[in-house]
Amino acid sequence: MTAVIPQTMRASVLNPDLSIRLEERPVPTLLDDEVLVQVGAVGICGSDVHYWKEGRIGDFIVRQPMILGHEVGGTLVAVGRDVNSSRVGQRVGIEPQRACRICWQCKAGRYNLCSSMEFYATPPIDGAFCEYVKIQADFAHPVPSSVTDEAAALLEPLSVGITTMRKAQVVPGSRVLIAGAGPIGIIAAQTARAFGASEVIVSDPVAARRDLALRFGATSVFDPLADDILQANFEVDAFVDASGVAAAVVGGVRNVRASGRVVLVGMGADEIPLPIPVIQNNELIVTGIFRYTDTWPLAAHLVASKQVDLDSLVTSRYGLADAVTALEAATDPHSLKVAVFPGR
Amino acid sequence: MTAVIPQTMRASVLNPDLSIRLEERPVPTLLDDEVLVQVGAVGICGSDVHYWKEGRIGDFIVRQPMILGHEVGGTLVAVGRDVNSSRVGQRVGIEPQRACRICWQCKAGRYNLCSSMEFYATPPIDGAFCEYVKIQADFAHPVPSSVTDEAAALLEPLSVGITTMRKAQVVPGSRVLIAGAGPIGIIAAQTARAFGASEVIVSDPVAARRDLALRFGATSVFDPLADDILQANFEVDAFVDASGVAAAVVGGVRNVRASGRVVLVGMGADEIPLPIPVIQNNELIVTGIFRYTDTWPLAAHLVASKQVDLDSLVTSRYGLADAVTALEAATDPHSLKVAVFPGR
Amino acid sequence: MTAVIPQTMRASVLNPDLSIRLEERPVPTLLDDEVLVQVGAVGICGSDVHYWKEGRIGDFIVRQPMILGHEVGGTLVAVGRDVNSSRVGQRVGIEPQRACRICWQCKAGRYNLCSSMEFYATPPIDGAFCEYVKIQADFAHPVPSSVTDEAAALLEPLSVGITTMRKAQVVPGSRVLIAGAGPIGIIAAQTARAFGASEVIVSDPVAARRDLALRFGATSVFDPLADDILQANFEVDAFVDASGVAAAVVGGVRNVRASGRVVLVGMGADEIPLPIPVIQNNELIVTGIFRYTDTWPLAAHLVASKQVDLDSLVTSRYGLADAVTALEAATDPHSLKVAVFPGR
Amino acid sequence: MTAVIPQTMRASVLNPDLSIRLEERPVPTLLDDEVLVQVGAVGICGSDVHYWKEGRIGDFIVRQPMILGHEVGGTLVAVGRDVNSSRVGQRVGIEPQRACRICWQCKAGRYNLCSSMEFYATPPIDGAFCEYVKIQADFAHPVPSSVTDEAAALLEPLSVGITTMRKAQVVPGSRVLIAGAGPIGIIAAQTARAFGASEVIVSDPVAARRDLALRFGATSVFDPLADDILQANFEVDAFVDASGVAAAVVGGVRNVRASGRVVLVGMGADEIPLPIPVIQNNELIVTGIFRYTDTWPLAAHLVASKQVDLDSLVTSRYGLADAVTALEAATDPHSLKVAVFPGR
Repeated sequence: MTAVIPQTMRASVLNPDLSIRLEERPVPTLLDDEVLVQVGAVGICGSDVHYWKEGRIGDFIVRQPMILGHEVGGTLVAVGRDVNSSRVGQRVGIEPQRACRICWQCKAGRYNLCSSMEFYATPPIDGAFCEYVKIQADFAHPVPSSVTDEAAALLEPLSVGITTMRKAQVVPGSRVLIAGAGPIGIIAAQTARAFGASEVIVSDPVAARRDLALRFGATSVFDPLADDILQANFEVDAFVDASGVAAAVVGGVRNVRASGRVVLVGMGADEIPLPIPVIQNNELIVTGIFRYTDTWPLAAHLVASKQVDLDSLVTSRYGLADAVTALEAATDPHSLKVAVFPGR
Repeated sequence: MTAVIPQTMRASVLNPDLSIRLEERPVPTLLDDEVLVQVGAVGICGSDVHYWKEGRIGDFIVRQPMILGHEVGGTLVAVGRDVNSSRVGQRVGIEPQRACRICWQCKAGRYNLCSSMEFYATPPIDGAFCEYVKIQADFAHPVPSSVTDEAAALLEPLSVGITTMRKAQVVPGSRVLIAGAGPIGIIAAQTARAFGASEVIVSDPVAARRDLALRFGATSVFDPLADDILQANFEVDAFVDASGVAAAVVGGVRNVRASGRVVLVGMGADEIPLPIPVIQNNELIVTGIFRYTDTWPLAAHLVASKQVDLDSLVTSRYGLADAVTALEAATDPHSLKVAVFPGR
Repeated sequence: MTAVIPQTMRASVLNPDLSIRLEERPVPTLLDDEVLVQVGAVGICGSDVHYWKEGRIGDFIVRQPMILGHEVGGTLVAVGRDVNSSRVGQRVGIEPQRACRICWQCKAGRYNLCSSMEFYATPPIDGAFCEYVKIQADFAHPVPSSVTDEAAALLEPLSVGITTMRKAQVVPGSRVLIAGAGPIGIIAAQTARAFGASEVIVSDPVAARRDLALRFGATSVFDPLADDILQANFEVDAFVDASGVAAAVVGGVRNVRASGRVVLVGMGADEIPLPIPVIQNNELIVTGIFRYTDTWPLAAHLVASKQVDLDSLVTSRYGLADAVTALEAATDPHSLKVAVFPGR
Repeated sequence: MTAVIPQTMRASVLNPDLSIRLEERPVPTLLDDEVLVQVGAVGICGSDVHYWKEGRIGDFIVRQPMILGHEVGGTLVAVGRDVNSSRVGQRVGIEPQRACRICWQCKAGRYNLCSSMEFYATPPIDGAFCEYVKIQADFAHPVPSSVTDEAAALLEPLSVGITTMRKAQVVPGSRVLIAGAGPIGIIAAQTARAFGASEVIVSDPVAARRDLALRFGATSVFDPLADDILQANFEVDAFVDASGVAAAVVGGVRNVRASGRVVLVGMGADEIPLPIPVIQNNELIVTGIFRYTDTWPLAAHLVASKQVDLDSLVTSRYGLADAVTALEAATDPHSLKVAVFPGR
């Protein structure tokens, strides 16, 4: 099988002045260990919106034109010299990171913590709002034909969910509290169920989001505006924050049983005042997650086996020329996931 | 061997009005699974001072007369019906907790988190500023003859140190930062070395305490008044807070390498603003400790094998009649550990 | 609610001469921490058959009359002095062990390894082929009304399945090979799926048992008489032996991927020649299980949520007077689980 | 600093006919990520002797001329293009493996289990009985000046000891039984002490080796010819086999306390009949080790801090021309470690 690869491609480029323009860019050339993927679908993440609105996240600043998008599904269309050419034609979800494989963290199995990490759509690395992207071969993960391009793209946030459940040590019978019913909270709820949680309580102040949570994994919901989380006494095995809101974090921490786990996923304030005696007296384990390692095969399995539904999370779809409209849609509180289809 | 046990004993009693008086009290009577220990030495802990000064710690309030002291070494002098009488005469360190052994935490091996815990010198349970105490037989741990009564008493804070190292996952070659060179910090430094730490950095603003740290386990010291801990870039495997000071905690958290551990031991503010992105981006594990399980045999071994020196930490010694003086001495910043000897 | 408890009860007693006779026995009297359970259903385990046929298992010898049966579901009808009387009327599954709660293993959370363990139907402790049994209150686990008495009884072998999956570290996406499609193998297959295994291969030489496996959790089956397991190259994450057959064990060990797990559950030969270089070169973890800790609540959840089907495993049912017939039925290779109903 | 690197070097080459000849070979040329090390000392391992005597180990067969030796200390004398040239002149111990860094095992932190591993002196990869070797830069580990070349070489067997202690979960206070007082057993005994073991029992039938064990870490020794290990009842936390002898393995397994660990390091029979009920009833964890990951920095620390003494283990030393004599010396039961110095 041979695909004809063009010399150039269309790309939606974010500029340091925060404008986004559709440009003609060279199709990436491959190193020996890389593959070229024709982008089928790209999910929009909160970080894409943030770079577009603010031009930076923490110390990562958009100083030169950059392509957004790091949730990518598509088709493998070319291989580098060291890669088996039989992979051409394979449909894949992309794990959008490039680690050094040499440092201590990499060799310890924590390549997500590689200090030389290059990550899609994190300055100055280009992402996937374009027709073709390249990635090292082992980070282009095959997906079965039953997984759509947009679901393949959303294996990325599902990987966040999987990593969260691993860190939260969710096992069959676990009781889990999740704060925030945005995309990550909703995916976390589904993932918690797939990991065997017997009870998944999702907290969100927005009724529509609580309803979504109940459709996607939650066994019950909690309205923090109507009831006081500090009085809830849930005594869950694990609390997952997917809100980034200080009050939600503190409320969650106070609802974990002794020796339980707290996993902070949501991004928000730079500092949150945590109740130290509660952590001490209950020997809570508090941690956060930073991306993922070894999640795509499981993510693909969870979707293919219908334990997790990603397609239904996509609330609007756009072509590459409408990237700005897509980013705007992603800021709409009624949207869940927005997808861009560069081929349309 | 038979010891003659008197009917009454002298006890130093803390009253709800915060007065301390020497009284004559009945010697405790034993349940079938208990033993009676003639108290040889009692160490004074910060919590003893706190109850004496404030009459409460959190929700634990001195509402009725209570005997202070929970760091106890002595001699086993009588046994309950279910206990082998050959133990009479045995020298012991007391693990001052009584768990229910029935609840889920107890049966999971976390009896320190038993919700029905009764703990020496925690209202309304009496402690050991007296001549005799009772404890369940398996919580009176034998010590070899080379371990003095006061070292046997200090197996309790050493148990805190051991639990801390376990939670911090200190192993041979670990690099550890400890904030605070009070008794717990000093013991933690020694324990870190016993656990194989290759580098133990102790931070304290008081020069005398830093000198002590260097005598007892620290490989280097840090003066947070002279240098900015936020610039230190130690990248340790584990940070142990034994200060309870917010700035020390935050500074410590920022000096842990990715995927490292933070163990909060010091008691202080009810809330500390923690840098959540630092915890997330580095996937730090933040936890605290609450007492201990299964530490006394190891603690006795560490002392007997001279890997940890507890006797040298005792800076002053008093009889039972001088309990108030002893408590006052314990508040002196130049003292490290103060011991009370009820038999003197 | 008050139940009238009779003075005596019918019991099916195994004698040292291996005869079994229905006798009138006193209803057990309760210690303060115990409850009385009216037996609804008792499952027959291979060990019951073994004691009946051989009069011993290893060093455990039937030297005095003993009641068989340790898989018990029923109704709590009376409580000891320390137990909340509101529990009377509760339907329960019994965890048939009595640990000392004092020894090091107990306090470390491994009460199944208590050296003073007293276990139902293990000489000289009586089991449950009778109308009433007693157990410590915390080992009588409530079950929801949707769980039948016979399913409540079979929470015991399901607890074996749960413990096996925990030891095998089966997580979402795991690939598992199970040798033996008897009751434990079938329950293990279902449990593996409940723990998220994406692939469960069950090996058994009997076609009917392979068919059963496919009904109850297996994603594929293997006939060791038709194909050579040594050539299979399954590279599973975990191998569970539920056969006790040496060839199956060795074949399984050779089909585990590097750093995978082997859990030996089946009982058989006293020695099995294991391929040490395979264990070494692949750093396999080989272990076994001995009963269980903290499994009943999860087991009840898995049944109530229909993730595991226990009722369908019962292939024949008998009254107490027909205990011998029931034991004979349990030896029939076409039977799966046989249950005795003392109330019938 | 510039070192003049010659074009050719002397190498001691093992041929398929099992002859060993000193030859002139090209000095290895470097890939971009590699460094060149001038070999200071090479330790002889049992596997070197085995290849020399038998021409094979398992499926690894000497089909073409190969250089033996994989325990290497020396000086870094040249760097590939991607390596910081400031490393030239650095003294190093070599971790003699080259993993793919791409496969699942590599990315999970278990690069020792990489299926594409290339390992020194394992056919067809050349080892270090020569003047210069090359290795990827991150596998040439710096050692402090206090560590001699021969100790730097012996960081390799020490890495085996460290990996063993990690697998055996030896922690402060552990009690360890080691079978076999050859080089690995002796190093394991020292390492066990460095990991905090309070008791290290070494078993060996040879009195001289038991004496050595007592000099190097053992707290007591056991003569399996004089006493029956099956009666010993040591109840250790961990048993390490460094003998490869079936009777020693079985005896060791029977002397581990419930839930303890067995680590099989010694190579010997292809099969050993293990007592399965003992493993099951005690829930023992049985595993083996295959090389190592992330051990050199700790190994260097243990030697530099004098917790482990490697130099004293070298019982004879030879030049490169005397490789055959050196290999013969290594078969002498009175020798412990034999070292070859290519520069002499």
